[in-house]
Amino acid sequence: MAEPTTKKLHLTAFMRPVSLHTGAWRYPGAYADANFNLAHLRSFIQELEAAKFDAFFMADHLAVLNMPVEALKRSQTLTSFEPFTLLSALSVVTEKIGLAATASTTYDEPYHIARRFASLDHLSNGRAGWNIVTTGNPESSKNFGREEHLEHGERYKRAREFYDVVTGLWDSYADDAFIRDQETGIFTNPDKIHVLNHKGDELSVRGPLNIARPVQGWPVIIQAGQSDPGRQLAAETAEAVFCSPRNLEASKELYADIKGRAEAVGRNRNHLKILPAAFIVVGDTVEEAKQKRLKLDSLVHYDSAIASLSVTLGSDASGFDPDAPLPDDIPDTNASKTGRASVIKLAQEEGLTVRQLAQRLGGFAGLAFVGTPSTIADEMAVWLAEDAADGFTVVFPFLPQGLDDVTRKLVPELQRRGLFREDYEGTTLREHLGLPRPKNRFFD
Amino acid sequence: MAEPTTKKLHLTAFMRPVSLHTGAWRYPGAYADANFNLAHLRSFIQELEAAKFDAFFMADHLAVLNMPVEALKRSQTLTSFEPFTLLSALSVVTEKIGLAATASTTYDEPYHIARRFASLDHLSNGRAGWNIVTTGNPESSKNFGREEHLEHGERYKRAREFYDVVTGLWDSYADDAFIRDQETGIFTNPDKIHVLNHKGDELSVRGPLNIARPVQGWPVIIQAGQSDPGRQLAAETAEAVFCSPRNLEASKELYADIKGRAEAVGRNRNHLKILPAAFIVVGDTVEEAKQKRLKLDSLVHYDSAIASLSVTLGSDASGFDPDAPLPDDIPDTNASKTGRASVIKLAQEEGLTVRQLAQRLGGFAGLAFVGTPSTIADEMAVWLAEDAADGFTVVFPFLPQGLDDVTRKLVPELQRRGLFREDYEGTTLREHLGLPRPKNRFFD
Repeated sequence: MAEPTTKKLHLTAFMRPVSLHTGAWRYPGAYADANFNLAHLRSFIQELEAAKFDAFFMADHLAVLNMPVEALKRSQTLTSFEPFTLLSALSVVTEKIGLAATASTTYDEPYHIARRFASLDHLSNGRAGWNIVTTGNPESSKNFGREEHLEHGERYKRAREFYDVVTGLWDSYADDAFIRDQETGIFTNPDKIHVLNHKGDELSVRGPLNIARPVQGWPVIIQAGQSDPGRQLAAETAEAVFCSPRNLEASKELYADIKGRAEAVGRNRNHLKILPAAFIVVGDTVEEAKQKRLKLDSLVHYDSAIASLSVTLGSDASGFDPDAPLPDDIPDTNASKTGRASVIKLAQEEGLTVRQLAQRLGGFAGLAFVGTPSTIADEMAVWLAEDAADGFTVVFPFLPQGLDDVTRKLVPELQRRGLFREDYEGTTLREHLGLPRPKNRFFD
Repeated sequence: MAEPTTKKLHLTAFMRPVSLHTGAWRYPGAYADANFNLAHLRSFIQELEAAKFDAFFMADHLAVLNMPVEALKRSQTLTSFEPFTLLSALSVVTEKIGLAATASTTYDEPYHIARRFASLDHLSNGRAGWNIVTTGNPESSKNFGREEHLEHGERYKRAREFYDVVTGLWDSYADDAFIRDQETGIFTNPDKIHVLNHKGDELSVRGPLNIARPVQGWPVIIQAGQSDPGRQLAAETAEAVFCSPRNLEASKELYADIKGRAEAVGRNRNHLKILPAAFIVVGDTVEEAKQKRLKLDSLVHYDSAIASLSVTLGSDASGFDPDAPLPDDIPDTNASKTGRASVIKLAQEEGLTVRQLAQRLGGFAGLAFVGTPSTIADEMAVWLAEDAADGFTVVFPFLPQGLDDVTRKLVPELQRRGLFREDYEGTTLREHLGLPRPKNRFFD
């Protein structure tokens, strides 16, 4: 099943927020303002580019997320840069690394989205990527004049049509539409302009766009949905998929399913890259890496953490002895049996106390690689070989040290093994990811 | 009436498009792609900053404007960068100059607009300005799913409420809301967050915003409307007004009217700057400047130009001898008598042929200062002294030479006379314009 040994990993950096771990900003030596300090972000992206990462990726939200006040006051995410403005600024201080931004199909307009990504793609000379989201967070609707959040199926229906309109607007001009002949005075060849005139169920957009076709033809299309309509939309349209599989087996299922669906609609399975989010903690020994993670988890607020544990167990954990192991006699309840069992298993395997277990859940509970450069490279090689991933979306534990550990220790190990590029071979994000430049549907 | 002699001019540069003159891109030695080339735009803004301009200003449109195909194919405006992305990129290569962007209240959402300007203001360390427009061009509606363009009064009603919401969102956090205490784990003081909960006739927006209060409190508020509701909106909300008066007298009327309206609603008249758009052509002699302008006008496409002249005269001019003066016997019609008379007067005063007159109208027909640094400085001093302007929005005739002429010849002359700053005294756009930082309406 494994592809030829020339297969290499793709690595993108999850950078909004700069860490998904809620204790990250408190880690000893970490920048407390890493998420909202341009000088820091500039040094991070330049370091990621020096390490030959495929892209710098910004997730996004259109609201302050609904959380209990105790969690809210401890969160580093309330203040963040808006993706288009930050990526445009960072485009000037980098040359090769891709610049991917999340933008919503539910609370924005296709003309704006098409135009802004085209502009970013021109400014960066072909490095833009659009992470299409339908904005699941119901808090957002209230910031956009709607009391009712759009229903899931309705959001996906609009997203599919929105994609058609945006890509159609990107194709408004042939690549050779602009002549700029000072002698004759002809700036544009009018035969090379296409007026879209889209009229669909959800959207009505005339066009043409007021900016030339993007350098990449279209910016790279990214998606993160894992629901059934999310997978189908990804299969039909995405060129990279950010996902959060629990483990190797779950990722293999997702990988096979999405690539199979893509082939079913006539696409090349290699033109869609599966990039699971992976939290990476590097140590000089496995034990040191584990200790770093325990230290980081210990910075999560206990009251918030114990609430998460109670929900997962389906049983009030606030009365448990925080410094003892999980009791054996937790009553069986209606909570998800899978979630409950996996938490109990985790506590046993790692010998975690109630406090440590709660703080693990409250910190970052997803897929994690915690070890030495060598053990992490071993794990990544398995994921690559067994068709569970084409690479990873790296989630950093704290900054700058956790990022330094990846770029200075893990990446050289991956390069030594031939699992990651030594240098960029192209200049655009499409070239980094091995994706073709889309043909213009109106001109050829 | 004149204010103290310490009064100085403010100068902003009209940079989207980089020239409003339709022949600009064809001028001998001009960059044909000046409007869509990042390297050129970077050198322009750095030159404007070295000349101590207050701001770099981008007008905007949300559609390709409706024009005859002959004009369309000769226009340099079809492809332009989107303002937020370009200004964010340029913020990194400049330190002081203001960055003003046009954004529409009709076709965008206040949460997006508030957030993007806040982000640009943080990235640029307090240099953002928002030119509020209601988007008069009816072509735009068709790119945003609406067959009917919003009626003028309705657009202004929404604009006023939109401004309240955006400024309210900017005030979501007290300036000292973010503590980032790594020891205690408290990142944000929850008592310093305000939830707007706006529910008005046009808009319903909850808040809070997901970014800290802008460096300037609020980015500088700019407006360009000259209609009655436009003047009133400016008087109530604007801190700088871009306008296009025909001449000194018209500008004095506008200046007195808007400042009077501002005082009537309790504002300080000095906290609202009137900055008429002025097309500037500099020569070593007045004659040389006039010849530059004639040369530039001669690059305007004659067929398009003669159509403009016919409309203004209310009479078909295509049969006139292009190389002779305007005939004496143009029939009187229903066309605007003022427009007709002013065109006939212009032809007589400057001794223009039919072709030259047509090309003047088809090139740039608004307020122009054409002369030596000394004669232009004389004129500007009169406008300043007679309360017709607080400065100018400079429209360049062609680039780079027309811009070089302003920064290297006119600006030093203005500085020599004490009419323009020798250096920036502050770091923010508000400081350049002499505007106070707004108090937060929810925290003090």
